Order: sequence, then C-alpha cells, then structure tokens
Amino acid sequence: MKPSIPKGTRDFSPDEMAKRNFIFDTIREVFHRYGYQGIETPAMENLTTLEGKYGDEGDKLLFRVLNSGPVLLTIQSKGADQIKRADLAEKGLRYDLTVPFARYVVMHQNEITFPFKRYQMQPVWRADRPQKGRYREFYQCDADVIGSPSLVNEVELVLMIHEVFNKLGLKVVLKMNNRKILTGLAEVVGEQDRIIDITVALDKLDKIGIEGVNNELVEKGITADAIDMLQPIIKFEGNYNEKIDLLKNLLMSSNTGRKGIEEVEEIASMLTAGSFELDITLARGLNYYTGAIFEVKADGVQIGSVCGGGRYDDLTGIFGLPNVSGVGVSFGIDRICDVMEELKRFETLGIRTSSSKVLLTHFDKNTQKYCMGLASSLRAAGISTEVYPDITKKIVKQFEYANKKQIPFVVVVGEEEMQRGQVNLKNMSTGEQHPFTPEQLIEQLV
Amino acid sequence: MKPSIPKGTRDFSPDEMAKRNFIFDTIREVFHRYGYQGIETPAMENLTTLEGKYGDEGDKLLFRVLNSGPVLLTIQSKGADQIKRADLAEKGLRYDLTVPFARYVVMHQNEITFPFKRYQMQPVWRADRPQKGRYREFYQCDADVIGSPSLVNEVELVLMIHEVFNKLGLKVVLKMNNRKILTGLAEVVGEQDRIIDITVALDKLDKIGIEGVNNELVEKGITADAIDMLQPIIKFEGNYNEKIDLLKNLLMSSNTGRKGIEEVEEIASMLTAGSFELDITLARGLNYYTGAIFEVKADGVQIGSVCGGGRYDDLTGIFGLPNVSGVGVSFGIDRICDVMEELKRFETLGIRTSSSKVLLTHFDKNTQKYCMGLASSLRAAGISTEVYPDITKKIVKQFEYANKKQIPFVVVVGEEEMQRGQVNLKNMSTGEQHPFTPEQLIEQLV
Repeated sequence: MKPSIPKGTRDFSPDEMAKRNFIFDTIREVFHRYGYQGIETPAMENLTTLEGKYGDEGDKLLFRVLNSGPVLLTIQSKGADQIKRADLAEKGLRYDLTVPFARYVVMHQNEITFPFKRYQMQPVWRADRPQKGRYREFYQCDADVIGSPSLVNEVELVLMIHEVFNKLGLKVVLKMNNRKILTGLAEVVGEQDRIIDITVALDKLDKIGIEGVNNELVEKGITADAIDMLQPIIKFEGNYNEKIDLLKNLLMSSNTGRKGIEEVEEIASMLTAGSFELDITLARGLNYYTGAIFEVKADGVQIGSVCGGGRYDDLTGIFGLPNVSGVGVSFGIDRICDVMEELKRFETLGIRTSSSKVLLTHFDKNTQKYCMGLASSLRAAGISTEVYPDITKKIVKQFEYANKKQIPFVVVVGEEEMQRGQVNLKNMSTGEQHPFTPEQLIEQLV
Repeated sequence: MKPSIPKGTRDFSPDEMAKRNFIFDTIREVFHRYGYQGIETPAMENLTTLEGKYGDEGDKLLFRVLNSGPVLLTIQSKGADQIKRADLAEKGLRYDLTVPFARYVVMHQNEITFPFKRYQMQPVWRADRPQKGRYREFYQCDADVIGSPSLVNEVELVLMIHEVFNKLGLKVVLKMNNRKILTGLAEVVGEQDRIIDITVALDKLDKIGIEGVNNELVEKGITADAIDMLQPIIKFEGNYNEKIDLLKNLLMSSNTGRKGIEEVEEIASMLTAGSFELDITLARGLNYYTGAIFEVKADGVQIGSVCGGGRYDDLTGIFGLPNVSGVGVSFGIDRICDVMEELKRFETLGIRTSSSKVLLTHFDKNTQKYCMGLASSLRAAGISTEVYPDITKKIVKQFEYANKKQIPFVVVVGEEEMQRGQVNLKNMSTGEQHPFTPEQLIEQLV
C-alpha cells in the first residue's frame, strides 16, 4: 500500500516552503506598507454563495463537500432518479478569493471602515484537469480597495506591482487597458452589442496574430466595415502618446470611450513614464471589469501572466449591496515561483533552505549535555541552532546531517574542548575551522 | 438573500488576523530557532489515507469531497440500494496534521534527512457539532522530530513550549507523564490487559475527583485489589522527588515501568527544576503514545489544554514504514487566542490592529498629488502609509477614517503647507500637532 495524494495537489518540502515564503513575505510586506490589511475567509463556503458566480464552466469545476450525516439513507429514501446534487452537498471549496471577499464585505459591512483596503493570501480549489503549471489546489494572493472610485487606487496598485517584482528580482511588463475604451471601440465601429466577441478576439492577438484575430472576427459575424475600422488598433505600433492620439481620434464620438482615455491619462499623470504599457487588446474576463484592466507578464520566460486585475463597479451587488466600486490585483504565486525557478532568481537572491545556522556535534552524553547548554545561549541570542539529538561516536554522520540540510556552520565539542572552554567552529562552505569561547561563538554567528 | 458562511466556520477580520498572526509568528520563530523546518500538505487527502486512522468516531467526522464528474449518473446506474459512500467521494479534507505528516514522511522518505524536524501550521476540518470554542475549521500548529529516539528531543520540546508561552505572556503548567509508567502501573496491579480502561479513568481525575475515578474503575470491572493498589497514586500529593520515589517503589517489579521512570528522570536531568509537573493521571489519546506524554494548561482560565503531545514509536507503520520513532507537540491556536483575549494579553503586549502608521490627508487634487509624492518617500523608508484616496473638502471624514482604523498619526497637507514645504503631523492619541519638513517627518515616523 503506497500512499499518494490526490492528483493536482502538492506537498511542499522545507526547501520549497522557504522559496514560497520568500514570495509571500515580499508581497505581504508591500501590501502592508501601502496600508492593506489581511483578512481570511473559510475554505468552505455555502454553495449558494459560490454557484452561478463563475459561469457554467466554473460551476462544474467547484469541489463540493458531501453533506455529513446519512447521505446513503437520503439517496435510498429519495430514490436514484429523484436525488439532486443539492441533496448531496450544500457546501463547496473556495474557487477564488474574489467572491468570498464580496460575501465578506456584505456580511460585515457595518464593521468595515470604507474605503476598505484588504489583502488575502489563501489556497483555492478547482476541479480542473491537472497539467504542467495548473493545479487543483493553488494559492491566490489578492489586494483590493473597495468603496473608493478614486484613480489613486489604480496608481498605488501599479506602484505596488512594480515594488513586488523589483524585490523579487523579476523584470516585468505591466500592460494596462480600460474597459471603457473597449466599450467605446465597439460603439464607434457600430457593434456595441458585440463587445464581448470583439474583445475576446482582440485578446488573442498575442497568440494567433493579426490574421487570426481578423478571421475570428469574421467568424463571429462582425461586419466587414467594423473589422476595417478596427485595423488601425490591431496593427498599431507606436509609443504611448501616439497611441493616445490615435484613440482620441478614433473614439471622439463615444462618451464612454473618451472617459476611458481620460482615466488612462489621469493614471499616467501620477506615474513615471514607462510604468505601464497601454495595450488596447487586453481584456481579461471582461464581463467583470468596468474601468482599468491590468496584466503583468515576466520578461524572458514563456509563461502566462503572473499578476492581473482591474476595476469592477458592482462586485457586491450579487449579494445585495449595490454600487460599491472596487479595484484590485491578484498575484499568481505558483507561476511567480515557476518563473523564479526558471530564471534561477532564488539562487541570485540567496534564498536557501530554511535550515538552522549551526549544528552542535558531540561524542557522548557528557559532551552532548554541554552542547545543550551552549545551544541555550546561542538560541537566546537569536541564532537558529540544532544539537544533533542522538549519541554517536561517528562524527562523520553528524557532519553528513549538516551537509544534507545545508547547515552552514558546525561546532565540534569533544571532551578536550569542553575542558578548555573553547569549541571548534567549522565553516562548511570554506572548510575553515577556528576555536572559540562560547561568547566569541555568539559574536561569530549572530 | 443574506449571505452567510457554513456553521462552525469563521471569517477573520484585520484585527483578528493581527492577533492570530502574532501567535503564529511567535510560535514559528521559536520553531525556527530550534531548527524545525516548515512543510505543507494539501487540504484534500485520499480517503484511503484518512479512513481508519481516527477510530469510528473520527471516520464519521471526516469531511468528504464529492467526486467531480457525473455523480448523479453513477447513482442512477448503480441504483439507490447499491450505491456506496466510496462511489460518491474518494477524497476528504485533512482531519489533523499528524496522519498527513506520516503519509508525507513515507512518500518522501528518500528525500528527507533524518532525524527530520518539521513543523506545520495549517487548518484542519472536522464535522463536529459546533459549539463555543469548537469549530469545523481550525488551525493546528505541530512540531515533530521523526527518526530519533533521543530524549534530547523531548527536552527541547519542553524548552520550546516554555519559550512560546513566555513570549505570549501566558503562565502555564506543563504536565508530563510517560506511557511506560502507565503500562507499568497496569502490570503491577495485575491488570495489564486493562491499561486503557485504567488510564481513561485516571485521566478524568481533574474532572470527576477521586471517588468518580474509583467508581469508574469498579464499573469497568477492575478488581478491588487493583483499585486498592492504585490509591496511593490517585491520592498522591507531594513534590517531584517524592513522586519519583513512590513510583520507584510501586513499579519495582515492572521492567517497562522502571524504564518509564528512567526516561522521566533523564529528561528532568536536562531541564531546570519546575520545567514540568509529573502527573501520573495524564493519558491523552493513549493508544498513540509510547513514551513521554505532554499537556499544557493556561493558568487563571477555565479552558482545556492549549498544547499537548508525546512520543509515538510507529506513526509511519500504517503507511508501510515501520520502526520510526517520533515525538511532537501540537499548539492549539484557537484556544491560545481565546485565553489571550480572556486575560487581555493582546492589550498588555500592545498587539493592535495591523493598520498603517500614518494617513496623509489633503483638500483637493493638487494637495493629494503632493501627498502621493510624500507617501513614496515614507514608504521607501519602510513606513506603512496611506493617502486618503478620495478627494473631499471634509477633512473630518478623513480623520474619522484614521480614527476608526486606529491609524496613530495623521499628516495634513493644505495648499499653504505645501508651499511652505512643511506639513503638520498629528499624534492621534495625544492630540499633539507639529509642522515638519518631509525629511523630519520620516525621522519622526521611522
């Protein structure tokens, strides 16, 4: 009987945890410094909260929790033909952090100080087909401000994104668009009802190229005139100012479109040049967003986006609290971790295992007991310390333990050292070895 | 439609998170300093991993995850009478951290350096009847060493427990017992097959008193002679040395019993006096433990144990890796949090909300933009800073925001201050207010 774990799930070893925690800690520190506060919601939500929020496809991917109690009896008494999924499960596992957050805001609206700047870092579960880089349990890491229409929030999110990736040592491209520009485009080409078809096609530009996009537009039944009018946008290659000029020209007759351009310009006015790339083909789950749309891709790797988000105007409406505007971003921890592995950033940044700093080795009960006292002093000085727990004459075995665990320093305590009150400290990477008194040892290691 | 969460689950607000994180961080720091390394396992485990590990009662309390795919079709094709629970669910939510850890050790035995000192802080789920202090989702926080029979591990766990509660500002009593002493007792009273009945009764001494224990022993069919022989133990009131002497006398004829006393004495020899209280009535889920047994109770509150653990000799045997000895402790985060609330320790320790240090307030777009620049400098200096995001002439509203969020400092930037290059910093608790240049402001707040 070989034990295993469910497909699409993972164990994280100490080394993997050290790397992941570095990413979590980096993001959390930036969130805090910008005034975002953490919350947590339960892994299980009522299915009434989750169902219908992620489309039909999403509903299929929800993990449902079997009702406790006599489920089999329920099936027998109702009969196999009458039984419904709702009879089997009334709870499900969190599918993302956004819907539980909306639910949280509505439930706790009287305790919350608005604008509410919250972050949340917790796992989510999706019954997706597992494949490379796609898991059934993975972490999301979201920051949202809710209850403030100000574009200052968008600006700060852009600053936060850059700070995070800077600290992680990753070069990224932050693309920004605005839903209102997309709406304006659909309006001016005379296809305002087809905004979804148009933007879904535009969104694929990176993947299928101009011809592909045009083919898809034809397939979706967009008129030839409209497709013609979209060409300058699709084909456009120019800098930020040129793009804004083009858009102003193109969207002159659309109020919404002009408002979108205005928002982009206001955000840009509060940022240094190059903080974002205006990308009119960016859409990202459009139904949701009503203003700015963000997406971040890492330079130098072929991997999807590592961060994304945008403004939404009615997230909490689904739970009965309408007209609360919000804006947020979500960091994809697993992808970020993959990118950092691929680019060997953990090595560059010196993120190693979470091992102790020093191992104290010995030869018998007596010297081990001395080590225990020494360990107390070292730990009291904040030095992460291990005493090899078992008694063994084989010092080699103890060194092997230090080596495998990448513990950088080893102290050897023999009878003689103990008597002399000086122990040998060995630097495991240089091989250097020097005798020190306990006080000197602390100075060396602190 | 009022949204709600499943019974027995909880949302954690920013304030609650600040308190909980203080406890988590404290424990994690001590774990690290003693050389324990973190791992994580998935929330879902295969039911083959979980079932049969927690007794019949435990199996009933497992949350099972409904298989994805057409479950209703399966029910119809098998028929209501033929369907089994295994047809509906093959995965379940983690019930504790111990069984997943055993599974982890067996699965990863070739990558692990033994002795393996690991900690794990993750939620677990139990379909228990929710009640005060008992939840269906709660955190466990475990540290275990596996692959080392040395009592040094027990000693270090005792030290760690004291360090943790010291840092949390909680006075605790650490009770210790040894399973071998309990086995010895059952042997010498001639009831070695009844060790479970005897220890279950002894374990209730705190709750039901001497008479209650004796009644239960009678009910369980323990002989009158045996009960007589147990009286000195049950009634015993004396110090550590007297207790050891009594036990040595009583257990003279039991090899196992003598070994248990020896272990207690060896552990005591490596600790300062008063590090633990020897409690021969302590049992704690006895089937599991084979050596030391620990339990920690907080002084001054009527609440169950806040930490417990012990040595087990065959945890991984259930997954096919026999003879691996381990010892560990588990901290009950939720109870610890409750105790700290009750004793107002968060106040004493100055653990407040996770709010920013300073809010920058303004009167219009112009002064807000100045605040954005100021915020950049403050944040670059590591100061957690917020700019009130919306434009409002009502400075009162901005102060109200700072008050509600317990932000300790507010900076006011008017047109005049901006021109002068000096802004007013107000200390929200004293009401004091002084003008500072941006550089001075950083010095004040850093």
